[in-house]
Amino acid sequence: MGEGRELSSLPSPKITFRYRKLAMTERPLGERFALLTDLYQLTMAACYFEQGMHDEATFSLFIRKYPANRGYFVAAGLEEALRYLETFRFTDDDLAYLKSTGLFKAKFLDYLKGVRFTGDVFALPEGSIFFKDEPVLEVSGPILEAQLVETFIINAVSLQTLIATKASRSTYAAQGRPLIDFSLRRTQGTDAGLKVARASYLAGFIGTSNVLGGKIYGLPIFGTMAHSFITSFAHEIEAFRIFSRVFPQTATLLIDTYDNIHGLKNAIKVAREMAARGDRLRFVRLDSGDIAAISKEVRHLLREEGLEEVRILASGGFDEFKIAQVLTDGGEVDSFAVGTKMGVSADAPYFDCAYKLVKYGDRPVMKLSTGKVTLVDKKQIYRFYDERGNFGCDTIARRDEALPGGAPLLKPVMQGGRLTRPLPELEACRQHFLSQFARLPEVYKTLKDPALYPVDLSPGLKDLQVRVEQDIHQRELGES
Amino acid sequence: MGEGRELSSLPSPKITFRYRKLAMTERPLGERFALLTDLYQLTMAACYFEQGMHDEATFSLFIRKYPANRGYFVAAGLEEALRYLETFRFTDDDLAYLKSTGLFKAKFLDYLKGVRFTGDVFALPEGSIFFKDEPVLEVSGPILEAQLVETFIINAVSLQTLIATKASRSTYAAQGRPLIDFSLRRTQGTDAGLKVARASYLAGFIGTSNVLGGKIYGLPIFGTMAHSFITSFAHEIEAFRIFSRVFPQTATLLIDTYDNIHGLKNAIKVAREMAARGDRLRFVRLDSGDIAAISKEVRHLLREEGLEEVRILASGGFDEFKIAQVLTDGGEVDSFAVGTKMGVSADAPYFDCAYKLVKYGDRPVMKLSTGKVTLVDKKQIYRFYDERGNFGCDTIARRDEALPGGAPLLKPVMQGGRLTRPLPELEACRQHFLSQFARLPEVYKTLKDPALYPVDLSPGLKDLQVRVEQDIHQRELGES
Repeated sequence: MGEGRELSSLPSPKITFRYRKLAMTERPLGERFALLTDLYQLTMAACYFEQGMHDEATFSLFIRKYPANRGYFVAAGLEEALRYLETFRFTDDDLAYLKSTGLFKAKFLDYLKGVRFTGDVFALPEGSIFFKDEPVLEVSGPILEAQLVETFIINAVSLQTLIATKASRSTYAAQGRPLIDFSLRRTQGTDAGLKVARASYLAGFIGTSNVLGGKIYGLPIFGTMAHSFITSFAHEIEAFRIFSRVFPQTATLLIDTYDNIHGLKNAIKVAREMAARGDRLRFVRLDSGDIAAISKEVRHLLREEGLEEVRILASGGFDEFKIAQVLTDGGEVDSFAVGTKMGVSADAPYFDCAYKLVKYGDRPVMKLSTGKVTLVDKKQIYRFYDERGNFGCDTIARRDEALPGGAPLLKPVMQGGRLTRPLPELEACRQHFLSQFARLPEVYKTLKDPALYPVDLSPGLKDLQVRVEQDIHQRELGES
Repeated sequence: MGEGRELSSLPSPKITFRYRKLAMTERPLGERFALLTDLYQLTMAACYFEQGMHDEATFSLFIRKYPANRGYFVAAGLEEALRYLETFRFTDDDLAYLKSTGLFKAKFLDYLKGVRFTGDVFALPEGSIFFKDEPVLEVSGPILEAQLVETFIINAVSLQTLIATKASRSTYAAQGRPLIDFSLRRTQGTDAGLKVARASYLAGFIGTSNVLGGKIYGLPIFGTMAHSFITSFAHEIEAFRIFSRVFPQTATLLIDTYDNIHGLKNAIKVAREMAARGDRLRFVRLDSGDIAAISKEVRHLLREEGLEEVRILASGGFDEFKIAQVLTDGGEVDSFAVGTKMGVSADAPYFDCAYKLVKYGDRPVMKLSTGKVTLVDKKQIYRFYDERGNFGCDTIARRDEALPGGAPLLKPVMQGGRLTRPLPELEACRQHFLSQFARLPEVYKTLKDPALYPVDLSPGLKDLQVRVEQDIHQRELGES
């Protein structure tokens, strides 16, 4: 992946300052969001409480199928899920609200007051590549606890996995050209705005326009100028001049407000004035029209003027498909700003992910609802690599099965409600993604109709699956 | 709209308890999110500051075009935008971060410390119906302030408007059957989860499964049971029995875990046991398979058993299209739980909305970028009704033009950074939506290919538009 030294010219602070203070001044996730759950989690919990059902339950989080044009997923959001589990508790305020609903008995509400998450989590490290039906995480704990956290866990993991997967496709399409997240204004809410900045960085982007994302996650931040900046001056060239004086090292001039070539000519004038002062114009930005054609013309004119060093940033409706098209058409773009379509995963705005009970006590369980069969029991994913170290195939097994030659992917990340080790830095997750992505063969990355990656069930899991299903037919449905 | 008395049987607290405490224990929006902005807002602000440019700017927020199958929009998110503007300020922590980036001069950062939003806002009340090109709000204030708030304002208004618009389509399709928001687990993040609960309620839903949404916004909350609840017991009927004992007045039994008809027979047994205790089973829930066919069979069997009073709730991949299909196919569904596809507006996951500078000082402005022309100056929307009181057509005018017979839709909601009057309760916004939606003719509500609602420009605006464009061509592009 080209980390784009040429991009250093966009306003980008040196990230020596890793700013975690805000995350600390907010209340812990598990306190803020214990009630960010579906009501049925609480009514079911009340039943478990009344019945004294506190055996260990294991829930498995996985994606049931690929949306169109997806052949893999990028795991993300684990840190948020674990921070939530670590700090999960109902506040007095929450309990007062629950009481006010009139649905719950006082004894149960008293019990909820003391509930914490005391279970275990096995999970794929963030940045891992995984495939449909494979558990991205498995939660084991007293059924009441493991059930109560379902809604938040799905929400946290599915959003960042959705966006990291989408963003990785732009990373692939751009062939090493640096990408920047510009999606904040149209993400689905403030939390999504922050998570998109994080997940796209994890998936190979070099930074974001999102300042709070920069502050919280320590991401490089980038920016240019808006059309409104140009139109607030009587003449475009005035706007360029002033910006280049205030930001002599980092100015990127937006040239399409009235007409690209007219704007470029003004930018060239200003570039000469900057050069005369010992400064340098680093970038012009294109934001509308036929980007491939315009970028070629802009590059040509810049060369004619001896301004080869001025780079071209393109924005405006980019996603992996438009990036690929512009490059196929010979567009001379050095860097892309990728916005809304990545930030909402527009062509696949959700994954069909589920968090299913797979074991209760010592009994593996499944449901049989039409088209929605789940894989029972605690599991492990084993990956088999080919001789060049590329992904060959995966096998989903029972967790205690050993499959020789396969690398186990799910790691124990939480035990008894505590992290087993400190969470990795985002930078390490990003490097993990990049190294794994390089080992995923091209056929699975194709933007349209990728090949289906082979995922098998182990003999032990297959056998158990059949036995559990037979058992349900006999025990529950009275068949023999 | 049928408010569904039959639905009162789903667990639904009486909402006498309007819980605002959480909103108060969080830091004010404008403090938490002053940095939730694009970096260029701050670099442009630095230029305005250096140049001493503090004239009044007006920005207009509007949607440029309809996504497929949309013929109107439902305005929502104004309350959040105004709460943000009221409390906008950079904290010391924010300023320390900005300083650490090395991009800004100390003098500018000192200035930012004192910046508050002191401007005016004209806006459509939440729940209003509007159309493309019409401003949903206009912000006027010193250019630096009005520019800095762009990113958050777009984010806040576009998400809730997106969801309210999508949800209103289910309201229309369900023909009075009560709808409940079940989307939380797959919304794009936590903020979206809350906003979807609010916006879908505003657009006619009767409540949500989202407990925190219930707490913060005072929404009715509803819940059923999950498949995991069933599978955690050795037999389905045990799960039903226990739930019906713990929630004797509000139980909804999910019958598809193993087989719908088998599940229904268990539910019928439990319904008789409940009746014998003086309780009553109110609902069964279908969640998979051919809902139209299954619901007919379920209704038939319930009637045969003399259990006409047991209602049918359907869930599983519902949106306006699937609701309409099930009803067209004669499905006997009393209520729908609408989840993911509404919660992410799956067929149109973003709007092409923009916040554009339309006036600076006394100069109306526009950009000419290909395909993206904006309407200049401060504006007003006038609506003309037909003789039956239904929407006839709209005219967008300059704000100071009077158009006799037209009702002005944009209201002054903020002056000098303060609310002009207390914000309406969500309930009042919902009633406003329902009454307006009833006046929107059917042809614009059709789920597929709705008719194009007529929106004109006033003579005054048309004239100004031409003059400004001519002026740019002469002044900027040197044409005559």
